[in-house]
Amino acid sequence: MDAAALWQRYQDWLYYHEGLEFYLDISRMRFDDSFVAAMQPKLDKAFKEMDALEKGAIANPDENRMVGHYWLRNPELAPTPEIKQEIIETVEQIEAFVSKIHSGEIHPPDARKFTDIISIGIGGSALGPEFVAEALAPDNAPLDIHFIDNSDPAGIDRLFSKLKDRLYRTLVIVISKSGGTPEPRNGMIEVQNAYAKQNLNFSAHAVAVTGTGSKLYNVATSENWLATFPMPDWVGGRTSELSAVGFVPAALQGIDIREMLAGAKEMDIATRKPDLKTNPAALLALAWYFAGNGRGEKDMVVLPYKDSLLLFSRYLQQLVMESLGKEKDLDGNIVYQGIAVYGNKGSTDQHAYVQQLREGVPNFFMTFIEVLEDRQGSSVEIDPGVTSGDYLSGFLQGTRQALYEKKRDSITVTIPQVNPRTVGALIALYERAVGFYGFMVNINAYHQPGVEAGKKAAAEILDLQKKVMEVLKENASLSLSEIAEKAGQPDQVEAIYKLLRHLSNNDRGVILQGNLAQPSSLKASLQG
Amino acid sequence: MDAAALWQRYQDWLYYHEGLEFYLDISRMRFDDSFVAAMQPKLDKAFKEMDALEKGAIANPDENRMVGHYWLRNPELAPTPEIKQEIIETVEQIEAFVSKIHSGEIHPPDARKFTDIISIGIGGSALGPEFVAEALAPDNAPLDIHFIDNSDPAGIDRLFSKLKDRLYRTLVIVISKSGGTPEPRNGMIEVQNAYAKQNLNFSAHAVAVTGTGSKLYNVATSENWLATFPMPDWVGGRTSELSAVGFVPAALQGIDIREMLAGAKEMDIATRKPDLKTNPAALLALAWYFAGNGRGEKDMVVLPYKDSLLLFSRYLQQLVMESLGKEKDLDGNIVYQGIAVYGNKGSTDQHAYVQQLREGVPNFFMTFIEVLEDRQGSSVEIDPGVTSGDYLSGFLQGTRQALYEKKRDSITVTIPQVNPRTVGALIALYERAVGFYGFMVNINAYHQPGVEAGKKAAAEILDLQKKVMEVLKENASLSLSEIAEKAGQPDQVEAIYKLLRHLSNNDRGVILQGNLAQPSSLKASLQG
Repeated sequence: MDAAALWQRYQDWLYYHEGLEFYLDISRMRFDDSFVAAMQPKLDKAFKEMDALEKGAIANPDENRMVGHYWLRNPELAPTPEIKQEIIETVEQIEAFVSKIHSGEIHPPDARKFTDIISIGIGGSALGPEFVAEALAPDNAPLDIHFIDNSDPAGIDRLFSKLKDRLYRTLVIVISKSGGTPEPRNGMIEVQNAYAKQNLNFSAHAVAVTGTGSKLYNVATSENWLATFPMPDWVGGRTSELSAVGFVPAALQGIDIREMLAGAKEMDIATRKPDLKTNPAALLALAWYFAGNGRGEKDMVVLPYKDSLLLFSRYLQQLVMESLGKEKDLDGNIVYQGIAVYGNKGSTDQHAYVQQLREGVPNFFMTFIEVLEDRQGSSVEIDPGVTSGDYLSGFLQGTRQALYEKKRDSITVTIPQVNPRTVGALIALYERAVGFYGFMVNINAYHQPGVEAGKKAAAEILDLQKKVMEVLKENASLSLSEIAEKAGQPDQVEAIYKLLRHLSNNDRGVILQGNLAQPSSLKASLQG
Repeated sequence: MDAAALWQRYQDWLYYHEGLEFYLDISRMRFDDSFVAAMQPKLDKAFKEMDALEKGAIANPDENRMVGHYWLRNPELAPTPEIKQEIIETVEQIEAFVSKIHSGEIHPPDARKFTDIISIGIGGSALGPEFVAEALAPDNAPLDIHFIDNSDPAGIDRLFSKLKDRLYRTLVIVISKSGGTPEPRNGMIEVQNAYAKQNLNFSAHAVAVTGTGSKLYNVATSENWLATFPMPDWVGGRTSELSAVGFVPAALQGIDIREMLAGAKEMDIATRKPDLKTNPAALLALAWYFAGNGRGEKDMVVLPYKDSLLLFSRYLQQLVMESLGKEKDLDGNIVYQGIAVYGNKGSTDQHAYVQQLREGVPNFFMTFIEVLEDRQGSSVEIDPGVTSGDYLSGFLQGTRQALYEKKRDSITVTIPQVNPRTVGALIALYERAVGFYGFMVNINAYHQPGVEAGKKAAAEILDLQKKVMEVLKENASLSLSEIAEKAGQPDQVEAIYKLLRHLSNNDRGVILQGNLAQPSSLKASLQG
């Protein structure tokens, strides 16, 4: 395609949203008109299904749930007056609580004000808050946020080491829908233990974000925690950033959550239009379909050219992969769907792997995120008339062009600035695009049946550990297969080996003797 | 395969290094004996070529360079006495310098000691130092490190906002082999400007790590910077962590660089053995070859189950993708090689995308990194007899098993602890595995010709910007195509549109008038 034709194609496909000053460019995805025409039935179906979903249809049939994260930014759309009321009141409650924390009206027992936050959560209860903190926390935030997003004892200890002198003025947010997910529960118990060691009253520092009536809800209310905010049944973890899950930590950091809602609402209006060319979510989904042939044959590489958006691709990894990575379609056919997502930031990643993207295995398409504003205030000149922001902008343009020359496709999203409104809009855009694409490829984008298998397998390992410890208590020294036999788990020799190796490396009273290079030679016993 | 056979396969393929207490398990890659037999000629070739490379052969033919990062941990292997001497002396010079910084013998003009570091670099000059800082910096490091690893003005401003009261006691390390790479140069100029604004003498705070005789070298010596450390020609950016590039920042943070070298040296000895089953790098490379059919058909997902190893996959992204992502093989055939790498950490990522990994598009293989030690000291019990570390260990085992059930292959790397020795060993292992795999698939793993194209395209954009500004100075108001014509670049209308849009959003005197949704309607002029 010559330069003039490409410039025409650029303009033909350019989407611009005036209110949000938002651009979407899919002109460098090399589809043609016949592809678009062939997609029309799938687009029509998806427009119809998204509409039904927003009206309260059971869009998550396996779990018999409504999918309502869209209502969060426009409570008028909620299917019942109760849900509408709950949405409105939750935001008001968060603002009232946060204002009391900021003013010191609610303060820790031993200090005038809270200065730090530990936010405990995993999956959607971590990625959204982490992404938004990195993107939007002001330089002098009223509270500094720290995350426990794993069950790693050393990681938790590192945080305690940093906060040990400030724990008495640290607010702890525990985010868990059910209260039963192990990682946040473990994090909470570790933190409670740290507070107890300093003779601090944990409840006077604690806030819960959880489903009403959950285990965590009951603990928080019976122990008289500072506050409890609801995590509604009709909001999934990966679409919970604009609910209390994201808003409690965000508002505490001084981020304008009403602006996030406003940006998301405006994007929702735009992405509701049942017309491809004026609907940026439909354009995105179409581009994804084209890239991967509707079967995820290409990875989505996401590169925001802006440090503060570093975690956006990690956020999208969950949103896209957990939503779309499905074994079966809605009719029960085996389809192995999904789109793999990765990326960090430009231009940094250019120096890491644009070599492969440009020349190597062509198994991806790119999404560039461009931010027009370089910085607040003026810039020093690097060369006459050229700033470091001009370089960054040039790197984006240059890389897009260098990839296109090698027939590597790309999408470009452009926002004027990183602010609560544009971040809200980005979240809403990708939420809609994922749901829309899910309907195009006929899958349930709102469940995650595959996550359970790993959890179940892990629970079985912990059960096995208890059985193995029982066996060892009653015996002097046994081989791994003898332990498996006595534990009634003759097939689990390898798992037993692994857990004993782990215990013996952690001073848990287990001794392994023999040749470590030959596990079957090992004998296990308990100390003393 | 039944449980007994699987346990046998596990033991048959288990690699154990006694000195490093290091395990590698490739038993869950479902290759068979005939595959291994068929690979033997490629393995033999790779053993031979790695040997020649270490002896100083020109292993990077395009750039006519030796590949010598292996010599860093065993200077006896260096091909000349001069190189041997330089390696030994550089480590000694780093230690001597760092000890003077720690003691305060070298101190900033206005403070008794340096307390912070700004490390400026990109690509290999950022990813290694960032990974190692996250993995190994002690809780109370003698200096806190901060990175400028991009050309993002807002990102740089955020750092300045954090450090503004400490700039007078901040040490600045500028890392750039040539001194000509724009990102570190831009970062340096931005930092110099910040020092100048506070009337601080930048040179009295600055250290260079660069090629002897480079532009940066000349600046640092003529301006009398605190120190300059060499970045040898025979060390590539992505394999420079165990050179001055990684060691200056690491040693300043109090990380034991001799131990990193010792771990790497021990791993080098192990990975030099020309025998598959006793060489962990060859085992890894074999597993990669099997996974992707020697053509990168599957992505490598890397999940360390340990917070401090969060950046390991980003580090590997560069090492693997820049090394292996090549258009042509050594005979000039078009091959589009490479392996895509992504991942963050377990169990966190399980909640983000194990859904897709287990059930969705089967386009990946997994690498689990297991760390046996949970934490220093004892743990609170989560359930009777069960700690949060047991959970983490159970999640790893459970996920590995849940993936295997669905025919998703995995590799497991096990280390006793995250410490300088094991991190050195991991770096050495993957450096060797990448080089070895490169020889197996017959590519040059040590150049990066594709990176230049993006740089060149970016430089052209900046040139175009200058031309466009000249045109605007001489004209009242022009359409985009008129500007392109007058600038002598009639094919560059889109690039001109993009750069004018960027300038007009940054108060750079450019005014764009017309309908923003229709770029061809726009007219540009200069202010005032």
